[in-house]
Amino acid sequence: MTTANAERKPGHPHRVVVVGGGFGGLLAVRGLRRAPVEVTLVDRNNYHLFQPLLYQVATGALAPGEIASPLRGILKRQDNARVVLAAVSEIDVERRRVLLDRSANEDQDIELEYDTLVVAAGASHAYFGHDEWQPLAPGMKTIEDAIEIRGRILTAFEAAELESDPERRQAWLTFVVVGAGPTGVEMAGQIAEIANDTLPRDFANVDPRSARILLIEAADRVLTSFPERLSARAFRSIERLGVTPVLDRSVVDLDDHSVTIQATDGERDERSGGEPSGRDTISAHTIIWAAGVRASGLAAALGEATGAAVDRAGRVSVGPDLTLPGHPELFAIGDMVEVHDADGRPQHLPGVAPTAMQEGRYVAKVIAGRLDGAEPEPFRYVDKGNVATIGRLKAVMDIKGVRLSGTIAWLGYLFIHLFYLIGLENRVLVFIRWIVSFVTRGRGSRLITGRRAEVGDRTPT
Amino acid sequence: MTTANAERKPGHPHRVVVVGGGFGGLLAVRGLRRAPVEVTLVDRNNYHLFQPLLYQVATGALAPGEIASPLRGILKRQDNARVVLAAVSEIDVERRRVLLDRSANEDQDIELEYDTLVVAAGASHAYFGHDEWQPLAPGMKTIEDAIEIRGRILTAFEAAELESDPERRQAWLTFVVVGAGPTGVEMAGQIAEIANDTLPRDFANVDPRSARILLIEAADRVLTSFPERLSARAFRSIERLGVTPVLDRSVVDLDDHSVTIQATDGERDERSGGEPSGRDTISAHTIIWAAGVRASGLAAALGEATGAAVDRAGRVSVGPDLTLPGHPELFAIGDMVEVHDADGRPQHLPGVAPTAMQEGRYVAKVIAGRLDGAEPEPFRYVDKGNVATIGRLKAVMDIKGVRLSGTIAWLGYLFIHLFYLIGLENRVLVFIRWIVSFVTRGRGSRLITGRRAEVGDRTPT
Repeated sequence: MTTANAERKPGHPHRVVVVGGGFGGLLAVRGLRRAPVEVTLVDRNNYHLFQPLLYQVATGALAPGEIASPLRGILKRQDNARVVLAAVSEIDVERRRVLLDRSANEDQDIELEYDTLVVAAGASHAYFGHDEWQPLAPGMKTIEDAIEIRGRILTAFEAAELESDPERRQAWLTFVVVGAGPTGVEMAGQIAEIANDTLPRDFANVDPRSARILLIEAADRVLTSFPERLSARAFRSIERLGVTPVLDRSVVDLDDHSVTIQATDGERDERSGGEPSGRDTISAHTIIWAAGVRASGLAAALGEATGAAVDRAGRVSVGPDLTLPGHPELFAIGDMVEVHDADGRPQHLPGVAPTAMQEGRYVAKVIAGRLDGAEPEPFRYVDKGNVATIGRLKAVMDIKGVRLSGTIAWLGYLFIHLFYLIGLENRVLVFIRWIVSFVTRGRGSRLITGRRAEVGDRTPT
Repeated sequence: MTTANAERKPGHPHRVVVVGGGFGGLLAVRGLRRAPVEVTLVDRNNYHLFQPLLYQVATGALAPGEIASPLRGILKRQDNARVVLAAVSEIDVERRRVLLDRSANEDQDIELEYDTLVVAAGASHAYFGHDEWQPLAPGMKTIEDAIEIRGRILTAFEAAELESDPERRQAWLTFVVVGAGPTGVEMAGQIAEIANDTLPRDFANVDPRSARILLIEAADRVLTSFPERLSARAFRSIERLGVTPVLDRSVVDLDDHSVTIQATDGERDERSGGEPSGRDTISAHTIIWAAGVRASGLAAALGEATGAAVDRAGRVSVGPDLTLPGHPELFAIGDMVEVHDADGRPQHLPGVAPTAMQEGRYVAKVIAGRLDGAEPEPFRYVDKGNVATIGRLKAVMDIKGVRLSGTIAWLGYLFIHLFYLIGLENRVLVFIRWIVSFVTRGRGSRLITGRRAEVGDRTPT
């Protein structure tokens, strides 16, 4: 058993370990750059991923490396920070140690001792009790996910091109996106643009414009986190792009060539009039999951170790200072937590990058302040607004009550995302890609790589 | 059994099928753009790969998409060409059909009928009878290979960072490149630059500059395809970069933590003086194979079907018009063939992009000419020269007897490679990457993705 930071000199500075290099974790590390502490950032990947643009990788508009920055590069000039590439296997709250899973280093289990721990391990997909759907309907949280989805979308057009049976061909040309939150809407809009703008001249036997793109949503409107008026605008915009939004419907079954939906709620079903009621099975080979998230397993582990409540989405409850009950040295932030105010009421903060970033910055301030003997103010979330893009020149934006849609919202979306993207080189490259895509309606990064390089890999029944 | 192009109108135009979208195949298709023919390009990947820059992807300097262009995009405006994404399972020379392997399209086997066939299926690595070495010492022919090697190199530094045993740490910091042709030299030089220029400030416990980079070559000099004087220059340049070239040594054994070499030839062994003679086992986790190539299996299949000779590297013999004996309708070109002149003497053309491109262009001219009743001139290879880069501002170049090394050769190398890269967008992006890398000594695409994302995946003994 080795303790990787045990060799430090006695009377060591305050040791902070941060788990997770997403928005929350990274901002916590950066916020401590002038504090008299020693920071260790642990992540299972060697890069920070700009998740909000992952859907553009999945649709070939951007390359994976353009939205990912190596953590060591980002923190190169922060002398009090170091990076460890490893998965966390366990947190020992009593002994204040983080156990790392690194079988590459042979029989050595490696532990990191901490004085303060910040856990920012994020969330992955929730399949609502149907984990067997995951390989059939991949979600979009990692670079590997995005490359897989990109391969499936492009492969579907290739398979349709060589399919002579019209019914089977239509199944290859049917794309189902489950969940009409920002990711689902963006994804469906991008698939429509691929079919209608990028590919039309590419195929000999198939007209990509005949693709059907269904956007399935259990609620009665798209983009439920936006005001109703913007939801309605987004609905019309996305319909005009060629997407068919299907509201009030939940997925009840799926396999590798079809998805079965049914009315979310019997009452609503009658209201929807002409739409098919009850069950409906759609033949489709490409199904993309954008319906729900589930907190990292570390949230439940922290709940168990500290007695904090864990909700149905797997999120652990933290107090107004973002610490776990009885453990002022133990912070948890971002998509894996539910923040409660001083009266114990859940805050229901949105699971978006700005929330995690504000929490990361806050935690850094609390840690640095404590070393000066300061008492922390409770965390206050500042709503920076909400923006989602639908397609070319189309987006919706809701910033402190100012509600915009159309070109201005779309430019705002692009600007905000470029601004938060880390690294000047990536900003320049993404900017060029966007300009080229806009002018040519092409997509520069349309590769089928990895296991999906050969169509034959996917055997439908 | 469906014949994908059987539905065409009777009295169809002359049907050309081209297998392989590399330099040779693509130039053959492009060369037929004004000919009264119907061209079908078959490739198992949906992109053309610019293999000469693959080593820059493997070392994080470029992103995969920047050196790959979708075939459908390239041929979008060529109305007489279509693209089929599939692997070729068999060529039926007698019935003039190409059989495709596409299990995605269910029980349908798909065949392509041809009047003329051009096979340009390239080559992969040769492990000289040790195919079991492939997973231990990956070569570099595909995007997947390059991403795998990139992950191994970066993971090795990460593993060293957490390794407390000095001997084991050194094994993680030892990189062995097998084969000192252009790819091996470029690769070794790039690893040296990563260790010395890109990473030094990135790690807390490890100094990347202590990395050992060995370049093993069975012959008595590096870059044997260049004149001796340039080989000697390249040797000195690469040594100065921090690479240790080990000449006159062959790999006789390897596993996942070591490589065993021995003197290629007993006589030479004595000459090498102070160097360890006989067997020598080096502890190293990262071994990269750049030692030999083997023609696509389609070469041997064509040899069997037509009676053409197949050499030890698996290449099939073609005549001076690049056709197989007795089959004027059947061309084979590029890395999978050995071209013979009218007197049956092998031409020993270099296995580089310009050779394949000239052959592709020639074949297109012959096919178009025949439709006008013209007799083809035999193929004449024009030596465009040879260039290899070693590192920052260092390259060697041999163009029609003009031998250059240093900065001018290096600029020539960059210019030539940008010029032959397909697609304006990729040219601009690669140009920006190169400028940024040159100024910052950084590498923009340093991601560990795919199966290698977690260090724990690789379990050394």
